[in-house]
Amino acid sequence: MATKLTSRESDYSKWYNELVVQADLAQHSDVKGCMVIKPYGFAIWERMKDVLDQMFKDTGHVNAYFPLFIPKSYLSKEAAHVEGFAKECAVVTHYRLKNAEDGSGIVVDPDAKLEEELIVRPTSETIIWNTYKDWIQSYRDLPLLVNQWANVVRWEMRTRLFLRTTEFLWQEGHTAHETSDQAVEEARKMLEVYADFAEGWMAMPVLKGVKSANERFAGAVDTYCIEAMMQDGKALQAGTSHFLGQNFAKAFDVKFATREGGQELVWATSWGVSTRLMGALIMTHSDDAGLVLPPKLAPIEVVLVPIYKGEEQMAEIVGALQGVADQLKAAGFRVKLDDDDSKRSGWKFAEYELKGVPVRLAMGPRDLAGGTIEVARRDTRSKEIVPMDGIQSHVKGLLEEIQTSLFDRAEERRTSTTTSVDTWEEFLAALEAGGFVEAHWDGTSETEDLIKKETKATIRCIPLEGNEETGKCVRTGADSSQRVVFARAY
Amino acid sequence: MATKLTSRESDYSKWYNELVVQADLAQHSDVKGCMVIKPYGFAIWERMKDVLDQMFKDTGHVNAYFPLFIPKSYLSKEAAHVEGFAKECAVVTHYRLKNAEDGSGIVVDPDAKLEEELIVRPTSETIIWNTYKDWIQSYRDLPLLVNQWANVVRWEMRTRLFLRTTEFLWQEGHTAHETSDQAVEEARKMLEVYADFAEGWMAMPVLKGVKSANERFAGAVDTYCIEAMMQDGKALQAGTSHFLGQNFAKAFDVKFATREGGQELVWATSWGVSTRLMGALIMTHSDDAGLVLPPKLAPIEVVLVPIYKGEEQMAEIVGALQGVADQLKAAGFRVKLDDDDSKRSGWKFAEYELKGVPVRLAMGPRDLAGGTIEVARRDTRSKEIVPMDGIQSHVKGLLEEIQTSLFDRAEERRTSTTTSVDTWEEFLAALEAGGFVEAHWDGTSETEDLIKKETKATIRCIPLEGNEETGKCVRTGADSSQRVVFARAY
Repeated sequence: MATKLTSRESDYSKWYNELVVQADLAQHSDVKGCMVIKPYGFAIWERMKDVLDQMFKDTGHVNAYFPLFIPKSYLSKEAAHVEGFAKECAVVTHYRLKNAEDGSGIVVDPDAKLEEELIVRPTSETIIWNTYKDWIQSYRDLPLLVNQWANVVRWEMRTRLFLRTTEFLWQEGHTAHETSDQAVEEARKMLEVYADFAEGWMAMPVLKGVKSANERFAGAVDTYCIEAMMQDGKALQAGTSHFLGQNFAKAFDVKFATREGGQELVWATSWGVSTRLMGALIMTHSDDAGLVLPPKLAPIEVVLVPIYKGEEQMAEIVGALQGVADQLKAAGFRVKLDDDDSKRSGWKFAEYELKGVPVRLAMGPRDLAGGTIEVARRDTRSKEIVPMDGIQSHVKGLLEEIQTSLFDRAEERRTSTTTSVDTWEEFLAALEAGGFVEAHWDGTSETEDLIKKETKATIRCIPLEGNEETGKCVRTGADSSQRVVFARAY
Repeated sequence: MATKLTSRESDYSKWYNELVVQADLAQHSDVKGCMVIKPYGFAIWERMKDVLDQMFKDTGHVNAYFPLFIPKSYLSKEAAHVEGFAKECAVVTHYRLKNAEDGSGIVVDPDAKLEEELIVRPTSETIIWNTYKDWIQSYRDLPLLVNQWANVVRWEMRTRLFLRTTEFLWQEGHTAHETSDQAVEEARKMLEVYADFAEGWMAMPVLKGVKSANERFAGAVDTYCIEAMMQDGKALQAGTSHFLGQNFAKAFDVKFATREGGQELVWATSWGVSTRLMGALIMTHSDDAGLVLPPKLAPIEVVLVPIYKGEEQMAEIVGALQGVADQLKAAGFRVKLDDDDSKRSGWKFAEYELKGVPVRLAMGPRDLAGGTIEVARRDTRSKEIVPMDGIQSHVKGLLEEIQTSLFDRAEERRTSTTTSVDTWEEFLAALEAGGFVEAHWDGTSETEDLIKKETKATIRCIPLEGNEETGKCVRTGADSSQRVVFARAY
């Protein structure tokens, strides 16, 4: 436990940074741009990973592992890809160190220079498609539905814990298909998986859409995305799923024998979410007292805290709470009984609030005598006294209610900050107010660039479920066939 | 399915390499020394990982994640550690590429040279202890029991799939303790966890021991290890657990406020197992027909194969097998029904043998009519016809029997190839025959080096449960207080 957090209102960015560190989620390391994910933060990521992994397996995917290093020349094989990824990356040039001749320490051995430099993977399309070439001969080998959990490195100048770090953890799905339609269907299916995860587990409502050409993944034909809205009115891209067409198959010469006996290039997708989701989770729900976690992803769903004076009371109350804890554990809840005698109960209350534990049960001598227990919920910070009898079903109902309520609250906020505008003045005002801005756009990259330059807003997505309403571009007045969603973004 | 494997007897090493590739476990990548772990191989590693992870959690450990990169200077902070690890490693010197001025592709941008080179972690003691400095102030912060699942890189000149690769996957536990005794206890406890996993899950008997000074981890006071014996008479180190004393605490200045109000350096352990275990698993049980897997780690425990002529028979038999598969799945078994009509049943038999599926159930028209099913076990390659009634309990019993039998067979082989010798001639003969050689040794590094130079044998371990029998060193004739275990090793 540390000092009080800066409030969101006074400095949202500072609040976030303090919260991440003080709630023991992550910290900066001495290696520029790289973070340490602390055990409590990692426990949340592990839960996210386990759930997503099961969702991938349920949709027919298997895991594999490909090398960390990519030969420099591979990046150049797909023309658009190299523009997007070959710039800011970690380059391995040598494979040996040696003792300095002047005894001053160790130095790079100039004799151990690699013939071709290796890039620490910023994403794995190239190394994977170079491998798929061996794996795919015939339509019988398709679809190939593979996922990888891995670390990747993109050299970032300005980093923020979880949101933008030089090294981050992620999963990257890479699939191969017989037809364009099947690949598009896969890319859309995985977008739905991401949306289901975001909404059903993270309690974070998302917009589903497709990126404009400017925001597309380097090497993709289409990039689908889910976009979430943070409390400060800025959007956050929470996951992307790419239809890659035949671009990588062409670059790595991956062809298959078709059902008709011909040879055709394979159709591809890739899709990923990363530890950035941790940032989205934190910013969607948390408040000035600290982290707020949806029960489904909380490493601890229920914490039990005894309130007592003296050893005799302590033994009685801890004993009673142990019974409740055992009962809840047996029912499958993730539970912690904090009977550490070296910390005061007030300290513990603040600590578990900071850490976002959804439900706190506290018991004092009066509760023990009366057969009651105090139940506090983290999201609303409300408390009530309930009978010990039936505590299990009460807790169960409460956790479900918190999960739903967090989603509803986030959705309410998103809806209330989403504005539909028709003029440039309205557009600017809506951007200043924060939130998603639905506006007509003439469909050109030039206009998008111009708007970005003038306002720092980007097109977050062209909604998949948008109405085919015609109108005039908010910036140029040219014709538009559909409103798109703008926002300033992380 | 591919061509027949080379036999173990004709060329064990070739047999292994062919098996790993043909059973779809792993393959070499274009990046020198780095492997691709294919989906089937990865599914086995995932099971190993899940089981180990639960064992670590059951012994009080939590997971975290530390940076991939280590500043070069960190490696130098612990004197012995730098000698062991700072030599053959991947060195990141630059953080940007750019288009070549002559348009020939992309080149390293000389302006993007790092001030201090970064090493891709060969192991994480240094970066972790640099972080622990912030995490540990008082005895209340101890013990600190953290594990990390990660990729590591050690530049290897001669590599073999799973056994020795430049990049490999592993877990590394890093713990901090108040006292020397507690740290030793932790190191020993994790050795027991590894041994339990090797024997109880991998069905691979292991010797538990401590390494001689020559074979100790760079930076450790003591290295405990488990050593397994492969079918070709060579030993394989399957896991290590290190008591690090205060070496890393000293190097990174990690002190804690003691219960008595003083300041003391923290005591440490680290321990790890890697994808090398895959190599051990493969070599312990497999045969000339392919992989043999212990049921507890098999991604598929039972495969069901229909034998039929024509669509009508197919529908009936597949229907009946589906019923069996559903029943087995509901009972918690990992089951696959292969009803692919494009492959013959003979092809499937060979394929699942190659892939080491422990139990195969096959059903033809005669079985269907008679209410029977053919049950084949992979380990003995024996077959029997059993009634469909009670197939679930039959399969359950059979899987347990296979698990036990694989362990027994491996243990029998290890015992029968372990030789106790007293003379140099016996020592040389025993080494030639293969297996563990128990011999007296004078306890000096010089003699160990000499024996290694003359015979390629190393001291695998000084057994923890060895008899305190005195004798004369098999090489020098000097006094010895205990037999140690020699072998040639992977």
